[in-house]
Amino acid sequence: MRFFSDNAASVHPRVWDALRAADSADSAYDGDTLSARLDGAFSELFGSDCAALWVSTGTAANCLALAALCPPHGGIVCHREAHIEVDEGGAPGFYTHGAKLLLAAGEGAKLTPETVTAVIDPIRDDVHQVQPHAISITQATEYGRAYSPAEVAAIGALAKSRGLALHMDGARFANAAAFLGCAPGEITWQAGVSALSFGCVKNGGMNAEALVLFDPELAGLVRYRRKRAGHLHSKGRFQAAQLLAMVQGGLWLENARAANAAAQEIAGACADRLLYPVEANEVFVRLIDAEAASLRAQGFDFYDWPSPDADAPPGRGAARLVTAWNSDPADVGKLARAIAAL
Amino acid sequence: MRFFSDNAASVHPRVWDALRAADSADSAYDGDTLSARLDGAFSELFGSDCAALWVSTGTAANCLALAALCPPHGGIVCHREAHIEVDEGGAPGFYTHGAKLLLAAGEGAKLTPETVTAVIDPIRDDVHQVQPHAISITQATEYGRAYSPAEVAAIGALAKSRGLALHMDGARFANAAAFLGCAPGEITWQAGVSALSFGCVKNGGMNAEALVLFDPELAGLVRYRRKRAGHLHSKGRFQAAQLLAMVQGGLWLENARAANAAAQEIAGACADRLLYPVEANEVFVRLIDAEAASLRAQGFDFYDWPSPDADAPPGRGAARLVTAWNSDPADVGKLARAIAAL
Amino acid sequence: MRFFSDNAASVHPRVWDALRAADSADSAYDGDTLSARLDGAFSELFGSDCAALWVSTGTAANCLALAALCPPHGGIVCHREAHIEVDEGGAPGFYTHGAKLLLAAGEGAKLTPETVTAVIDPIRDDVHQVQPHAISITQATEYGRAYSPAEVAAIGALAKSRGLALHMDGARFANAAAFLGCAPGEITWQAGVSALSFGCVKNGGMNAEALVLFDPELAGLVRYRRKRAGHLHSKGRFQAAQLLAMVQGGLWLENARAANAAAQEIAGACADRLLYPVEANEVFVRLIDAEAASLRAQGFDFYDWPSPDADAPPGRGAARLVTAWNSDPADVGKLARAIAAL
Amino acid sequence: MRFFSDNAASVHPRVWDALRAADSADSAYDGDTLSARLDGAFSELFGSDCAALWVSTGTAANCLALAALCPPHGGIVCHREAHIEVDEGGAPGFYTHGAKLLLAAGEGAKLTPETVTAVIDPIRDDVHQVQPHAISITQATEYGRAYSPAEVAAIGALAKSRGLALHMDGARFANAAAFLGCAPGEITWQAGVSALSFGCVKNGGMNAEALVLFDPELAGLVRYRRKRAGHLHSKGRFQAAQLLAMVQGGLWLENARAANAAAQEIAGACADRLLYPVEANEVFVRLIDAEAASLRAQGFDFYDWPSPDADAPPGRGAARLVTAWNSDPADVGKLARAIAAL
Repeated sequence: MRFFSDNAASVHPRVWDALRAADSADSAYDGDTLSARLDGAFSELFGSDCAALWVSTGTAANCLALAALCPPHGGIVCHREAHIEVDEGGAPGFYTHGAKLLLAAGEGAKLTPETVTAVIDPIRDDVHQVQPHAISITQATEYGRAYSPAEVAAIGALAKSRGLALHMDGARFANAAAFLGCAPGEITWQAGVSALSFGCVKNGGMNAEALVLFDPELAGLVRYRRKRAGHLHSKGRFQAAQLLAMVQGGLWLENARAANAAAQEIAGACADRLLYPVEANEVFVRLIDAEAASLRAQGFDFYDWPSPDADAPPGRGAARLVTAWNSDPADVGKLARAIAAL
Repeated sequence: MRFFSDNAASVHPRVWDALRAADSADSAYDGDTLSARLDGAFSELFGSDCAALWVSTGTAANCLALAALCPPHGGIVCHREAHIEVDEGGAPGFYTHGAKLLLAAGEGAKLTPETVTAVIDPIRDDVHQVQPHAISITQATEYGRAYSPAEVAAIGALAKSRGLALHMDGARFANAAAFLGCAPGEITWQAGVSALSFGCVKNGGMNAEALVLFDPELAGLVRYRRKRAGHLHSKGRFQAAQLLAMVQGGLWLENARAANAAAQEIAGACADRLLYPVEANEVFVRLIDAEAASLRAQGFDFYDWPSPDADAPPGRGAARLVTAWNSDPADVGKLARAIAAL
Repeated sequence: MRFFSDNAASVHPRVWDALRAADSADSAYDGDTLSARLDGAFSELFGSDCAALWVSTGTAANCLALAALCPPHGGIVCHREAHIEVDEGGAPGFYTHGAKLLLAAGEGAKLTPETVTAVIDPIRDDVHQVQPHAISITQATEYGRAYSPAEVAAIGALAKSRGLALHMDGARFANAAAFLGCAPGEITWQAGVSALSFGCVKNGGMNAEALVLFDPELAGLVRYRRKRAGHLHSKGRFQAAQLLAMVQGGLWLENARAANAAAQEIAGACADRLLYPVEANEVFVRLIDAEAASLRAQGFDFYDWPSPDADAPPGRGAARLVTAWNSDPADVGKLARAIAAL
Repeated sequence: MRFFSDNAASVHPRVWDALRAADSADSAYDGDTLSARLDGAFSELFGSDCAALWVSTGTAANCLALAALCPPHGGIVCHREAHIEVDEGGAPGFYTHGAKLLLAAGEGAKLTPETVTAVIDPIRDDVHQVQPHAISITQATEYGRAYSPAEVAAIGALAKSRGLALHMDGARFANAAAFLGCAPGEITWQAGVSALSFGCVKNGGMNAEALVLFDPELAGLVRYRRKRAGHLHSKGRFQAAQLLAMVQGGLWLENARAANAAAQEIAGACADRLLYPVEANEVFVRLIDAEAASLRAQGFDFYDWPSPDADAPPGRGAARLVTAWNSDPADVGKLARAIAAL
């Protein structure tokens, strides 16, 4: 029973259907009829004109965005546990041609205006120090926390007042939106976000993410950069098909709600063990080594996680449990009961 | 009736089957069981130990290879009409961090030892000039020409004698191999090639190419670079599945033979119009504007191509006709007759 | 008797005086009182508000300018024999993060609107091809030719009409200005040049060049990039001192006139041997090998140069003779007579 | 009375003499007779074969070294207050093509094996995380601390055991060597350092630093990179002349001893105020605002410095007092007495 991650889950049947339906030859690259529909579909979804470009990984979406928002000599404020800092193999440095990630703190991997200013205020405004040009936040965060519309807007207001662009890594944007129950526009362009990496792979897709640009001028630039990064697939229609299947008919929210509900079921069984409030599809629970071993012996697979308490005694760690759109309700129930029984 | 390119053709049924069979969750990235089989499958195919990494585009395969073979301050000799020079949006400059393409001549986009030395011999061996570090050739070339084993070996020998690495862009490697009837190893590692971009997309795949590295040490490096370029898919099993479907059971050659045969049928109908010998699945034919218009009026779609004769009078150009693994024999026959009847 | 190049000549006494006068401690970097005067001094010289930044080499000046005018995914049109293409060790690729030099033809290393359009017109306006963003010309050219105000303006008008920036490599700008007898503004900002590398080292300086930016917005950007490239000297006052000594009191023109006059004296002695009209301080003369040997036997040092005639028979080459601000009149006279006597 | 920094001090008379003596034309770039002597002079100084290349700034020396020791996809461990992290405008990102600085702690800006392992041990050995390839330490540190031979050797041993290269930023190497009284080789190659930025500008030079490479193979690579970075001066003899003047006859140590002695005199007057032991030419002293104002009113110029106590009450900060090779003994005495009298 796999609770490793949502990033290897099966592809949703409606995505499969869309892929098959896209098989007939069409114009190559993004000149096909499906790719042509993306801007419209995402503009409708977000309630605002935007451009949506398919790419095949979240890392590519994030880094194309960052490179469009920050010059090579600039800096990007992000959380010190942000995916772009910790898990993208230095891709931001590659795509931005050497820009610097400026690391900020925040509970549950959430930035706040205070933690951002704590990083940027001490920077002298001279050529010897890398100046901030952008902020990047993750929605939901790497610890499954959701930024409320007001929280995003507060960061957006700070960004605007300092002349910084705002990027959102939305690898699990659907899970956050499902949890918040708000319109997608409320936590993006209305709150000051200029570029969003809209995740699809973790949510039932095969290998397509959308880079959504709320500043239409950026799109022209990014199209060149996408090609230059080797991310312009010949048969782009298969990329577009996945994204259209997701956003049309609300499949993206439907899948996210299923994953979130599974996470809530697990969280409900172990409220006293939770490291963070569960607001998306990730559950971080305190476990001593023997408990983790017990769960594994019962057939549950998951990643160990370091305890956030730096001075936790040996043997007292944590685990990350991730649900997916297709987590088997029976397995989820078993896991909830097993943790409750520890 | 589409003769634009092979790069937008449908996906082969056996590739579809392999994709569907890969749907069950497995380890993420390239930790899955299918990805684990790639090195073995390609080592068997080439008759030599090699590493094979999936990537999603030919541009990514080419540029990851070039970056592994040439330092940022170096140069790469290629034909002035090579895809990496003309059609990859500057991706070599991005991936190599600014290395330089050194442009050589050659009939039908084929390099020869003579045209390569004509470029590198005049380079002064000092720090003011960019020094060559690699050669890149395309097999089959951008004009559908195949390098014979002896021709590759001659370039490989030159490369070795000058301390240069040799890369092969094999977007249509299958078509060349099918035409030559030789073992894949004969035109690659046995002839001095260290890295091969093994095309699959143009030959019935969806969005997977293999970067085949005959120097196993390079593979370690390239795995980091692939991630850093945002090309490490979460569900890499779908990439591996496509490649395995291609090389197992000889589908890659079967598809290429079909495309080549279609090209031969067309070529046979207009031998006097051919710009280049037809050795793969591309046919370049001389057409005056009225003839091109006539073909289009009959329902044939294709790209116009500039005449290679710089002083060709206006109205006397050429056309590129590309066949694919699934070109409809009826359509091919009609086209052959239509050209013959011009 | 050295006629190798002007780039190793002695430093002018007034530059030495200025260096010594700058010895007292002052603010570091470019915060000193001399650096503060540069913008004013160059604005006066050019008759227009501009920013002038010191850098220590012409390569740095050229490449900081190119990086400011062209994005990493863009292209820069230059002559195929331009210094930035041939003699800067790939520095443009480094500074621009991989932008591409688009090589154009032209007699005597001079571009014309026709040779530029021959390069850019065939570029398809799509993401697969690197789009031009800038043009770079050299004044005086690598063959000692000067662009007249009208010639620069014609290229400037083309640049403007195509949305391209225009850079001028002025390693020997002084020699061109001295030859043309025009105001410096006429061949720069009035003709559409946005950034000029104003040479000083070849003209009596020690190790300072000025990067003159006629678009004041660029200066802010370039100041960051200069630091990032390791070109912000701690004791920048020594850089500024050299430039101020050059432009104040007209030393730059005085030195250039002396070098040009020496070149004219040599040219006058061998008009029938000249490869190009002599308009600056470089003289390219046809010599057979025996003649070159004879000159060397008489104590003259110079570089051999390939004949521009690709089919020149062996033994029939050329020589480059370069004069400097301090070429000894006696040596120059001897050389002129020695060539005349061949 | 200037105690801002040593980086704007006057040029030593013997350096001036060497510059004037280098005025006669010689071969350009580093082909001159003085540049040819550098390897020998530094090999003698360090008691081991090494290559020494002149560059014009410490930033260039540091970053050329880092780029030679770490690939673009790698990481370099340094102190979080290291000059390369804090004060070089992102130059390491530029020169290394996007490698990452991995920030470690340590009192007085000194790394220890423990603080280095605290950073690198948690890095997972997979492609998702940037792997360490090098360590960079500063001798003397940004807080004027010197690493003893044993301390460098301990870091060198760690580096070797982990396959990491070791770079030393020696902008104030002379001050550390003078304090330690050891042979230069003891704190460099004998302790595992492969590349040293040997400072000269802060120690009486004009604009030349030496990049000393103890691995001769690196020199070939770095020579290309220096040119590519626009740091190969035409009249390199003026660079070499400064360095030779410094290391021949022991001027480098003589100057450093003078600066160190001045710092000791100040430190001796306020031992209870010192933030760090004074081991080079920098004195960090606790001052309340009124005290700082009083010193300034007496004519002393210096930089305020943040208190290292994060919770220091407002008004209780610190000051950085830097002496130089030519600090006026009378001024130093006045400053010592003024601080003692606070």
